[in-house]
Formats: sequence, structure tokens, C-alpha cells
Amino acid sequence: MEIMSIGNELLIGKICNTNAQWLCKKATALGVAVKRVTMLPDNIDETAVAIRETLNRSPQFVITTGGLGPTFDDKTLETIAKALGRKIEINEEALKMVKAKYQAYVANMGSQDFELTEARVKMASFPEGSTPIRNPVGTAPGMQVELKDTTLLALPGVPHEMEAIFDETIMPQLRKASNGAAFYDENLYVDIMESSLAPLIEIVMQESPGIYIKSHPQGEERQPHIELHFSTTSSNAMEAQERLRKAVAKLADLIRSNNGRVYSKEHNSNQG
Amino acid sequence: MEIMSIGNELLIGKICNTNAQWLCKKATALGVAVKRVTMLPDNIDETAVAIRETLNRSPQFVITTGGLGPTFDDKTLETIAKALGRKIEINEEALKMVKAKYQAYVANMGSQDFELTEARVKMASFPEGSTPIRNPVGTAPGMQVELKDTTLLALPGVPHEMEAIFDETIMPQLRKASNGAAFYDENLYVDIMESSLAPLIEIVMQESPGIYIKSHPQGEERQPHIELHFSTTSSNAMEAQERLRKAVAKLADLIRSNNGRVYSKEHNSNQG
Repeated sequence: MEIMSIGNELLIGKICNTNAQWLCKKATALGVAVKRVTMLPDNIDETAVAIRETLNRSPQFVITTGGLGPTFDDKTLETIAKALGRKIEINEEALKMVKAKYQAYVANMGSQDFELTEARVKMASFPEGSTPIRNPVGTAPGMQVELKDTTLLALPGVPHEMEAIFDETIMPQLRKASNGAAFYDENLYVDIMESSLAPLIEIVMQESPGIYIKSHPQGEERQPHIELHFSTTSSNAMEAQERLRKAVAKLADLIRSNNGRVYSKEHNSNQG
Repeated sequence: MEIMSIGNELLIGKICNTNAQWLCKKATALGVAVKRVTMLPDNIDETAVAIRETLNRSPQFVITTGGLGPTFDDKTLETIAKALGRKIEINEEALKMVKAKYQAYVANMGSQDFELTEARVKMASFPEGSTPIRNPVGTAPGMQVELKDTTLLALPGVPHEMEAIFDETIMPQLRKASNGAAFYDENLYVDIMESSLAPLIEIVMQESPGIYIKSHPQGEERQPHIELHFSTTSSNAMEAQERLRKAVAKLADLIRSNNGRVYSKEHNSNQG
């Protein structure tokens, strides 16, 4: 899977890409590996090129976030159409969704001034051959299009809308694709110089097929607190947890016998 | 400029990419536009391909973060060497830097067991033709290599080390490249439906060359609080601020005369 986060606000550092982190965590927990995240500007030409590059790598899923709203800088549907070489057309199903939302808003506000303006129709202007995805909490529908190797999904950038659509419509697709696999991890906190730790990690990784161990220095090399993160993906929970447990125990032993300190351990349950 | 953030911890959603946000903010404030951020795994082959793709776009600067430490998963120098088709060699200047750090740590700890292990030498194993960058607060040096169109810079992933190297060595290079340009922005907070706001933004952007206006919905369309972000890049502060002021005033007027509410305004000074 790949994630493409579209929006100038990301590239000027106005916000941190929490949407990508949320999606990475969810996909990983469901046993689907995210291979790349790309942050791109609100620029049709540059971003269409990037989408084509991504599709050429044939990931099973591509999720874009951002750019589905009514304003001029919301260009994702047009960008995807350009990347796919397809026309933009008014999608009747999407238009119904948008209309229904505005009719409800207007009724709530006790007003009558509902009008299907150009900006509102834009949210239903989809690439040919794509289908809208219900947005349970906001106005702009998501979009799904099935390509030869890839399911391409466009979600809004507003976090609670993106999350609601993911949970309702995308999660079941990922779960099906990963065939019951899940992600398992554990943390171990140790005091040892990272450079002394390096060869010990290699020993344990060689003895523990499928286990990935990453060290995250928390202080500096002269105050060597390190968080060790052990992870694996498997469709067999018992077997995965047993493999993790053994790897953690083995590395803890090696660290102790090399004058390191294993001073705490925190269990992370499966994030699914 | 492009940023490449290397580390599995990003792609499993363990951490948010605050390093990229920090760099985007700094570069933007210095008048250097970030065109793309790519998050990549600790995988030499996949990431070397991505680095080559990035260099083919000929950005003036490419900054990588992560993967310069002593453990097996720190593969960025090897990855860059592969991307450039260059050999890895022990860089004598980098080795001096690494040695000096360990000698100081060992002296501080009152110990004598300093040894230039394989893991420690790895931090000085650089692509041919590159130069080390002093790390004022940590162990692993940064790396700089001048290519035909691009200055390629590799920084550590530990945030305070990345930031210290950037401030000391990278910032002056960006400042020189941007020729005194800087980024200016203002926010305006309004109550109006985003879809009603869309045509008003277009009017103001057409009348305000060089001003980019982006709307960030804070609530939902039915409770339409919107943050408007006005920005421009210029080497003339007075002129830029005057242009910004005019665009903000014009859009505020238009929103008021379309039954919207302009309920607060917050000035953002130049982030530099």
C-alpha cells in the first residue's frame, strides 16, 4: 500500500501529517504494509505525475488524502483524472450524496437558500469509471476506482472525515486483502551504547526469522537510553507472540551479559 | 527542495513525521519551497530507487533524515552510495569526528574501554566524494555531496541532532540560495459555508498576484468555522506585507457582504 497526502499546508510545515500516521498505524495493524508515503502540493501537474509514478509500482492499494472539498485548491479528483487520462464527469450518485447533505444543513439552519452552486457540484465531479464512497460525517464523498493492479481510494483531508470513511468502507477491504494477518510488537527499554548494542541486535535478528528489531535512541550516545521495538506480521497470533517473546528474552539476556541494563518493559498489544 | 524521511517507524505509524514538518517550516520561512516529502523504509533497494527518482527531478536541495547511526537498520549512507553508483569508503575526516566523540564519552564515564568497533566505523563509512558535516550534539556526522544539479544532504533522525546540524550548517546554504527571500503569512478566521466561500477566494486570488489563499475547515460544513491562510514569498518585506494586508481586507469585506462573519484575526509574523 502507498499513501499520498495532498496539500500545500503539509509542505509549508503548517501542520504535521497526522493523517498519514493514522493510516499507517491502521494499515499495519491490519497486516497491510505501507511501502511509501508521499506528500504533494495542490498542483495538478506535479501531483498527477506523482500518482502515475505510484501506480507504476502497482501497489494493491493507494490512498490519497486531501483536496476533495469545494474550494479552488481542492483539486484531487481533477488530478486523479489527469493521472489516469480519464475525463471528469458529474457522478449522479455522488451528486445525490452532496445534495442530501446540503438539504439537511439548510433545513437544520431553518433557511431555504440551498443552491447547487458550481463549488458544490465540484465535489461530485468524478473521474469516469469511479464510484463515490459515503462520507458519514462530512459533505465531500470519497472516491474509489479499480485499476488493473490497484484499488485507488481518495479520502478527504479533514481528519475525522478521513477516519470515519476509512473505518466504514476501507478497513473491511484491507482486512480481506491481508487474509487475517495482523501486526504484533513489543518494546524493551535498555541502557547501553547504541554502537555496542548493534552487533547484539544482529545476532538476535539472525536467530529470529520474521522479527524486525529497531533501536530508537532516546537520549544521546553518552546517556544511552534506548527503546527497542520488536515487530512481526503473522496470521497466527499465538505463534507470533511466542516468537516475539523469545526474541525479547534473548536480546535482554545478551544486553545484560554485555554490561547493559534492561530497566523496563512495556507490552504493546496488537493495535488492531 | 525535496525531503526524504527514512525509517520503518514512520511507515508503521509509530511516530509522526515531525522532522519533515520542522524542515518544511524552516525552509519555507527561508524562502525555499519544499516540492515533495517522501517517507521510505529502511530498505536499501527501494529507497535507492526513490533517491534516484528524486535526483532526476533536479531539485536544488535534497535533505534525507534518519539512518545514520551505528545499528544494522541505519542504512542511509549505503543507500545513497547505491543510488549514486558510488563506492562506500572510510572517510578520514568523519572517522576523526566519530573517534573524538567516543573518546570524550569514555573519558566522561571514567572508563577506558573505547574501541573503534565495526558499528562505530560504520558511521564514518561514506559514499566516495562526499564530505562529513559536524554534529554539534550527537555522534553520527551528517553528510553532504555536491551533484550536478543538486546538493544532497543526509541528517540524523534524532530530532535534536537533525535540528542542530540544520541550524549550524544547512540554514546558511538555504539562505544564500533563496537570495534574501522570505515567507509571509496571515490567518483570518471566518464563519461561512466553505462552498459559499469558494468563489470569493477565487475573486481575491485573481486580484492579488503572488498571494496564495487556502481554506481550512475547522468544523463541519453545517458549523462552518474556517481558518483562511494567506501566504506569499518575497524578498521585499514591506511590499509583501502590504499585498497580504490588502488581500485579507478584500476577502473579509466580501465575506461580510455575503452574510459571513469575520470573527477573529491573528497575525502570523515571518517564521524565519
